[in-house]
Amino acid sequence: MPTLRIALAQVNSTVGDIAGNAAAVRRWSRAASDAGAHLVAFPEMMLTGYPIEDLVFRNSFVAASQRALRALAADLAADGLGELAVVVGYVDADGPAAISSDASPGSGRRDASALLHRGEVVATYFKHHLPNYGVFDEDRYFEPGDALTVVRFGGVDVALTVCEDIWQAGGPFTAARRAGVGLVVTINASPYELNKDDVRLPLVQRRAAEAGATVAYVNMIGGQDELVFDGDSMVVGPDGSLLARAGQFTEELLVHDLDLPGADAAPNAEGSTDAAKPQVETEISDDMAINRVSLTGDLHALSDHRSGGVADRIADEAEVWTALVMGLRDYVNKNGFRSVVLGLSGGIDSAVVAAIAVDALGPERVTGVSLSSGYSSEHSKDDAADLAKRTGLSYRVEPIQPMVDAFLANMSLSGLAVENLQARVRGVILMALSNQDGHLVLTTGNKSELAVGYSTLYGDSVGGYNPLKDVPKTMVWQLARWRNTQGDPPIPENSISKPPSAELRPDQKDSDSLPDYEVLDPIIKGYVDHDLGRAELIAAGNDPALVDRVLRMVDLAEYKRRQSAPGTKISGKAFGRDRRLPITNRFREGV
Amino acid sequence: MPTLRIALAQVNSTVGDIAGNAAAVRRWSRAASDAGAHLVAFPEMMLTGYPIEDLVFRNSFVAASQRALRALAADLAADGLGELAVVVGYVDADGPAAISSDASPGSGRRDASALLHRGEVVATYFKHHLPNYGVFDEDRYFEPGDALTVVRFGGVDVALTVCEDIWQAGGPFTAARRAGVGLVVTINASPYELNKDDVRLPLVQRRAAEAGATVAYVNMIGGQDELVFDGDSMVVGPDGSLLARAGQFTEELLVHDLDLPGADAAPNAEGSTDAAKPQVETEISDDMAINRVSLTGDLHALSDHRSGGVADRIADEAEVWTALVMGLRDYVNKNGFRSVVLGLSGGIDSAVVAAIAVDALGPERVTGVSLSSGYSSEHSKDDAADLAKRTGLSYRVEPIQPMVDAFLANMSLSGLAVENLQARVRGVILMALSNQDGHLVLTTGNKSELAVGYSTLYGDSVGGYNPLKDVPKTMVWQLARWRNTQGDPPIPENSISKPPSAELRPDQKDSDSLPDYEVLDPIIKGYVDHDLGRAELIAAGNDPALVDRVLRMVDLAEYKRRQSAPGTKISGKAFGRDRRLPITNRFREGV
Repeated sequence: MPTLRIALAQVNSTVGDIAGNAAAVRRWSRAASDAGAHLVAFPEMMLTGYPIEDLVFRNSFVAASQRALRALAADLAADGLGELAVVVGYVDADGPAAISSDASPGSGRRDASALLHRGEVVATYFKHHLPNYGVFDEDRYFEPGDALTVVRFGGVDVALTVCEDIWQAGGPFTAARRAGVGLVVTINASPYELNKDDVRLPLVQRRAAEAGATVAYVNMIGGQDELVFDGDSMVVGPDGSLLARAGQFTEELLVHDLDLPGADAAPNAEGSTDAAKPQVETEISDDMAINRVSLTGDLHALSDHRSGGVADRIADEAEVWTALVMGLRDYVNKNGFRSVVLGLSGGIDSAVVAAIAVDALGPERVTGVSLSSGYSSEHSKDDAADLAKRTGLSYRVEPIQPMVDAFLANMSLSGLAVENLQARVRGVILMALSNQDGHLVLTTGNKSELAVGYSTLYGDSVGGYNPLKDVPKTMVWQLARWRNTQGDPPIPENSISKPPSAELRPDQKDSDSLPDYEVLDPIIKGYVDHDLGRAELIAAGNDPALVDRVLRMVDLAEYKRRQSAPGTKISGKAFGRDRRLPITNRFREGV
Repeated sequence: MPTLRIALAQVNSTVGDIAGNAAAVRRWSRAASDAGAHLVAFPEMMLTGYPIEDLVFRNSFVAASQRALRALAADLAADGLGELAVVVGYVDADGPAAISSDASPGSGRRDASALLHRGEVVATYFKHHLPNYGVFDEDRYFEPGDALTVVRFGGVDVALTVCEDIWQAGGPFTAARRAGVGLVVTINASPYELNKDDVRLPLVQRRAAEAGATVAYVNMIGGQDELVFDGDSMVVGPDGSLLARAGQFTEELLVHDLDLPGADAAPNAEGSTDAAKPQVETEISDDMAINRVSLTGDLHALSDHRSGGVADRIADEAEVWTALVMGLRDYVNKNGFRSVVLGLSGGIDSAVVAAIAVDALGPERVTGVSLSSGYSSEHSKDDAADLAKRTGLSYRVEPIQPMVDAFLANMSLSGLAVENLQARVRGVILMALSNQDGHLVLTTGNKSELAVGYSTLYGDSVGGYNPLKDVPKTMVWQLARWRNTQGDPPIPENSISKPPSAELRPDQKDSDSLPDYEVLDPIIKGYVDHDLGRAELIAAGNDPALVDRVLRMVDLAEYKRRQSAPGTKISGKAFGRDRRLPITNRFREGV
């Protein structure tokens, strides 16, 4: 029974930064080799970053991914790492690059895994199950592969699979059982979602049973636009036993020794004894075909036994907080911003965003601005200053009244127009500071406010990134209380306990316009997250009149969330509608 | 050879307004009956509007569509229109509605066509080819049908198909040939794109040859969010002859008599002589199955012969102008806005938007505001006033300098921050007028500016709708010149002929920052619309240094187009990222 030391490289990748991602593969492959590993696996689309969206339609991008893979194989060998088997995700395409404007979308493009060995790309596998729901649109981008790839390496048959392959029964994992493999290596770019780690382990266990093989599951970490990848890489035995598990949101190398069943006599071992690139043999079947590749050479002997261990799961609040911190940090750093600025109202939302920003970037990269008006209470200004002091961020005060008065003196405004004017003057000030000092503006509207439209368009919604975009108000409070238990409390107790107010007119409270967040949030969750209708929401125990009121607000607010003005499409590709690019994208056309 | 009088109802539908859409079907069915038609066909998803995007995941919505279809059949019979065969698009689902939050996206939901007759839904067909490219995401939303439906009506076999079925070879049209039908009715929601009508006719001709049958193609008209449907309905004979063709962007009923081959002896005619609902018989095949339904009764005799005629195609500029006018009009009216407001700079972009708005809504619903600063030239103010006079829109003047000065007096700003400040003060003024008077704000940045980021975030980009979002600058000029040849010229000649300027600093010109639009626009078109890379753009004859400069600008501007601040997704559904709803959506949960 051969002992294979595997290393799962749970690392961060940046969309479009092919050179940087390749360098990370070389760096972590060195670490894996230093740890004595025979095989190291990197996440799905490690070389290109994930998700690349419509970048895949640019042939120059696909060609760059293909070139980088070949160069990486050679570079690893030049680094003295040729004996290490390196499994890495990238984007491939069938045949030479077609003229993209003529090609059907998705045609011939592949979400691929490659195994690199001795300077060569010795095996490739194309993802079979393509997710096309939720945040995924892979039917738009890729052709599904229809063959499993099995590499005989050190006397063990290793199958290559990619991400969604593990989320659906049938396909590659049943083919792996048929192929009699000892190990399935699954490379992933699986985005975080609250409690997703509770789903992953049973899933990997089911697939390990289906394949009758050990499964090595490696996932990406890090933020990309609105997604954050949480790692949670693991190794599961064919009997479902959890052999090793990495941390959540941690960049790390999970190294683990596996005693694996030896493969039967190699089907093509005799043909591959010379130094030439191994030949692929294909077994045809009604189901997926199986492509077999056999590598020569023995595994180096191991002088000790390494177990990856099983990292503890972190609490729900820690999970969300860490996701928000990592999402913000990577958005800021990958987009090249030096610093962020935000308005501090003294309220809970801006306090939590400030605490997230300080945890993500350090206080020296965060500026908080008190934008007080005549309606701002003394406690609001005190709470904002208190927060600044607790967190150590840069603090400045920019009263808005002189500018508001200039508008009021020159225009006839009343009611809502005056309320919104104050929020918009604050937006102009923050954007002016952004232009003057290069800060990224953070906006602080939580998911509950966004859902019901309780914000000012081009006012408090101004900003390049919103850490609370997907966080309901009740969870904002929960996070604040949790964070204050972790070391010195950054958030003033008063910001947590006082009733929320927009302070745009005298004595205004959120509760003047909105139901209590404790009853509002469950309705939003049912309607927005679970597509429940009115009857289902009422059947779930919500008050009918309240359901009607909230649904009306949510429907009307749909428009407000589309701040980027829509306009009639007339061309081959209109921005946004049928041209969908990542925001963070470092791919440059060679300039 | 039976003579069938068909009517193609090229009409407007509104997403979510199921009651209003059903009423339109009854109104136009009455008109078809009055014109002596035996059969009338309405567009794809006539009952629900198109595209409905994630609304399809709400069971209450799908159930409402199913209920409305059955009610419509009964209502048509009650209207005395029971003998008329009515083909209409709607959304269906297999079996009873599942709990949507548990169901896999798309599972069991159908993009469907129904034939209504004598108060019953006598036949249904589920779209086979689902488009999942460009603006379409139908693999996300629907299951493909795998059977062709053939209805024997008045001695003619009529096959039902939907939209994309005609854009791909194989499938329903080859099944229609196998079934030996005389007529294929194709219902569509096919969005406009420049010159798309040049593609449609040859396409319908190819499919008619493939089916060996006459094809009746009916398309929607009207605007829905960023799409506009252009009609262009037509009837094409099996030999490819164009028998009748409706206008572009016109709401109309195309009535045409067809002498069609009679069907062979009805396979189930004997079983359906009573008043009961006709039985469906299924022929199984390796290819698509064929479901046959046979209706009893003879076609009423026709006392005259009707030909639909072939409408002239309109010029390219007229096509784009009409698309922009219709897109704006429907966006404003379907969303319930009474009026629009826009800033008038005296430049070409705002002049063209104003002319479009006046054509769409009439001058009494359009307010133009001169937002002059110290850098505004006299000719700019004169040109704005001249435009107002020519078009008859409401005109007002709001100088921005007092507000700009209030910011400058209270903050230390310089350079770009001061330029952007002026644009943002203008944005605040327009939004204040919007809040005070209920106007929708129109923004006026053309596609070239958007592509290279030549605009101020939360400044001139403020607005709820942008008619020029997908119109390159060179086309803006072309449209202005063309529009001025149609009746009284609305656009001052000086706005067309003067060099473009943002007027945010003394003597500023676009050409200080940008290449000439004549060389810029082809590069944008190649890079944005056709996904060409640097090498391909240079091979196409563009100057290498210019290509590098433009690509850098476009890449960096990607961020600016996402004004709705992204934020880390943590929940089941984050707004925008994995919850995609139409903006214009009149579906209400019974409240």
